[in-house]
Amino acid sequence: MPASPIRKLVPFAEQAIRDGKKVYYLNIGQPDLPPSDTTLSAIRNTPIDVIEYSHSAGNVSYRKKLADYYKKLEIDVEFDNILITTGASEAIMFAFNCCCNPGDEIIMPEPFYANYNGFATATDVNIVPITSSIENNFALPPISEFEKKITSKTKGIFICNPNNPTGYLYSRREIEMLGELVKKYNLYLFSDEVYRTLCYVDEPFFSVMQLKGCDQNTMLIDSASKRYNACGLRIGALITRNREIVDTAMKFAQARLSPPHFGQIAGEAALDSSEDYLNRIFDEFKSRRDFIVSALNRMDGVIAPAAKGTFYVMAQLPVDDTEKFCQWLLTDFNHKQQTLLLAPASGFYKTAGLGRHEVRIAYVLGINDLRNAMDCLELALKQYPGRKEIKRVKSISSVSGF
Amino acid sequence: MPASPIRKLVPFAEQAIRDGKKVYYLNIGQPDLPPSDTTLSAIRNTPIDVIEYSHSAGNVSYRKKLADYYKKLEIDVEFDNILITTGASEAIMFAFNCCCNPGDEIIMPEPFYANYNGFATATDVNIVPITSSIENNFALPPISEFEKKITSKTKGIFICNPNNPTGYLYSRREIEMLGELVKKYNLYLFSDEVYRTLCYVDEPFFSVMQLKGCDQNTMLIDSASKRYNACGLRIGALITRNREIVDTAMKFAQARLSPPHFGQIAGEAALDSSEDYLNRIFDEFKSRRDFIVSALNRMDGVIAPAAKGTFYVMAQLPVDDTEKFCQWLLTDFNHKQQTLLLAPASGFYKTAGLGRHEVRIAYVLGINDLRNAMDCLELALKQYPGRKEIKRVKSISSVSGF
Repeated sequence: MPASPIRKLVPFAEQAIRDGKKVYYLNIGQPDLPPSDTTLSAIRNTPIDVIEYSHSAGNVSYRKKLADYYKKLEIDVEFDNILITTGASEAIMFAFNCCCNPGDEIIMPEPFYANYNGFATATDVNIVPITSSIENNFALPPISEFEKKITSKTKGIFICNPNNPTGYLYSRREIEMLGELVKKYNLYLFSDEVYRTLCYVDEPFFSVMQLKGCDQNTMLIDSASKRYNACGLRIGALITRNREIVDTAMKFAQARLSPPHFGQIAGEAALDSSEDYLNRIFDEFKSRRDFIVSALNRMDGVIAPAAKGTFYVMAQLPVDDTEKFCQWLLTDFNHKQQTLLLAPASGFYKTAGLGRHEVRIAYVLGINDLRNAMDCLELALKQYPGRKEIKRVKSISSVSGF
Repeated sequence: MPASPIRKLVPFAEQAIRDGKKVYYLNIGQPDLPPSDTTLSAIRNTPIDVIEYSHSAGNVSYRKKLADYYKKLEIDVEFDNILITTGASEAIMFAFNCCCNPGDEIIMPEPFYANYNGFATATDVNIVPITSSIENNFALPPISEFEKKITSKTKGIFICNPNNPTGYLYSRREIEMLGELVKKYNLYLFSDEVYRTLCYVDEPFFSVMQLKGCDQNTMLIDSASKRYNACGLRIGALITRNREIVDTAMKFAQARLSPPHFGQIAGEAALDSSEDYLNRIFDEFKSRRDFIVSALNRMDGVIAPAAKGTFYVMAQLPVDDTEKFCQWLLTDFNHKQQTLLLAPASGFYKTAGLGRHEVRIAYVLGINDLRNAMDCLELALKQYPGRKEIKRVKSISSVSGF
């Protein structure tokens, strides 16, 4: 596995800090917000006699509560359709290990979350990318493009919805088309929906688990990390109505004994977080998203689709190469002793050469910091010696509708 | 992966409980003892603002403290030789993923901890067993046997020291012979030393990390679970001076973001557990081991080597098949409304047909419970319809010396 373009920049950011600069970290999906009091209180006050292994699929009480949670979202599952995992990371590795033999293929729209590459390497699975484009807000590529990529080694299609890194929310129609496709070719449909509660449009969220007649195909990957500002818990879940997959995943789960004890306690308690807490988190991210999408689109030569969900936005910048530009921001740029760290989009594309004019921005800082960071970016784009106008794309519908 | 003989028995144990029997669970390595006050207090009182991802290799403060801990054990490593993992489970999978391609082979003395099979399946590695025997206390098989198994696909040798399930402690000479072997054939030497503090003999523990000239070959797998009665934390470590392995493992570590937050806080604090606490734990396990080995060897037809370490003992029982016997204990046996759950040893052997006359007993209950359980076992062996005398083995040196 090559080092990602994001990670290559971290030493430059550290040097900039040593040089006395304030660096706004907008490169990773680590929210800056606190967990709910309910979550914290469970950690502090749950009685502990023995710190033991839990059930390998996770505590039954937690799984039952999660099943109730999903039922309220019109995802009809029982507790024994749910395996608690060590983060969504482990859920994805279980899913790949259950569904694939070494060398099998999973089709994935790109750009995609760069860490999926690591899970694929660890499980000897090949990711086959299908390129989505900023020109139509990173919507699902045509189904015909998927069909062209299907081979005898193809085991499934993997989406992240709403999407990291693009912020795109797949429509019900897009999900239904994928459902028809996986049934037609007898494939699995994996959906990473860890950002589900962060959708900023009226359009209702539609999960792959709501597809009719796809029970044997669909697998939901979920996590407490983003929804409850609890990344460090390392608590995720693999959810499917396919009994064979559950049984096979249980064997991998048993091999690693159990998910973390305190993480499960906190994760279960997080489900009881108050409406007020959840609304405040949502409102905060929505304000940031509104702010940052507007700020980006006001900059000369910058295009940013209005992300419908997550806390990321992709932006096309008028530069020769965002890897160079992001490094230059850290090494050469200075605005009132401030600069920023962004994620060059090349790390999110598997197809070589793509993403060179795009960055992903994670809005994981408060509005004041974001404003300073966007001021820096606007100025930097004027000063950057490698500035290069990018051919204007036809239309970005969400921007016009924003 | 087939279901293990241990797991097949669990439903029978649950039925026995529903039928009103007391079942002594001696089947798994889940200690019944509490964590130290130091560990608990850290969970309760460490300030938390944001539950964030840690460094992918684990918190630097924890790794530095661990390096100091190892130095006291004459294992000279720096903090950047250490990756904190989600249990030893993850450390083993990182190690296999770093060192092996799909289809590569790892040689392992059997009987071995059954979960290694799961890690091998998850990483597409083949375990090649070399049989050790109860006749000589499960000592290391002759090096010539290892040499016979080495092929072009062999990437390493894996030991657990002291050994789960046998309780055997490899001698310094045995470790040195393995060191010479891996150097000769340019292999990795993986050593799972999670039970290191539970050694009941005067013979000093000798780690693979103390071998001279083997820095590029050796990898230590460790865990806080057993040492500090904290299985549920899911905190382990992969330790090696081989920089290439550290760098590759870091990529897998980065893909899964970080080990658990609260587990790391507790794991770091556990290193400060008082001598008094650690001594009490040690004394408790030593008393149990002394009791159970004596009790077993007093039973007619039973042979149990005096386990030198861990909290397991293997015993040869005068029965036709321990899988059948262990099930019969739960379904047909009853002594004052009590029975016991043991682990048939067949699950610890990869070679088909081995272990049929052996069980592993985990002494994870207090002496009074163990006494009741051994009373049950003695009586059961008299009543069991499939009783069968096993050809007496020549000599079991540790028993005579016990």
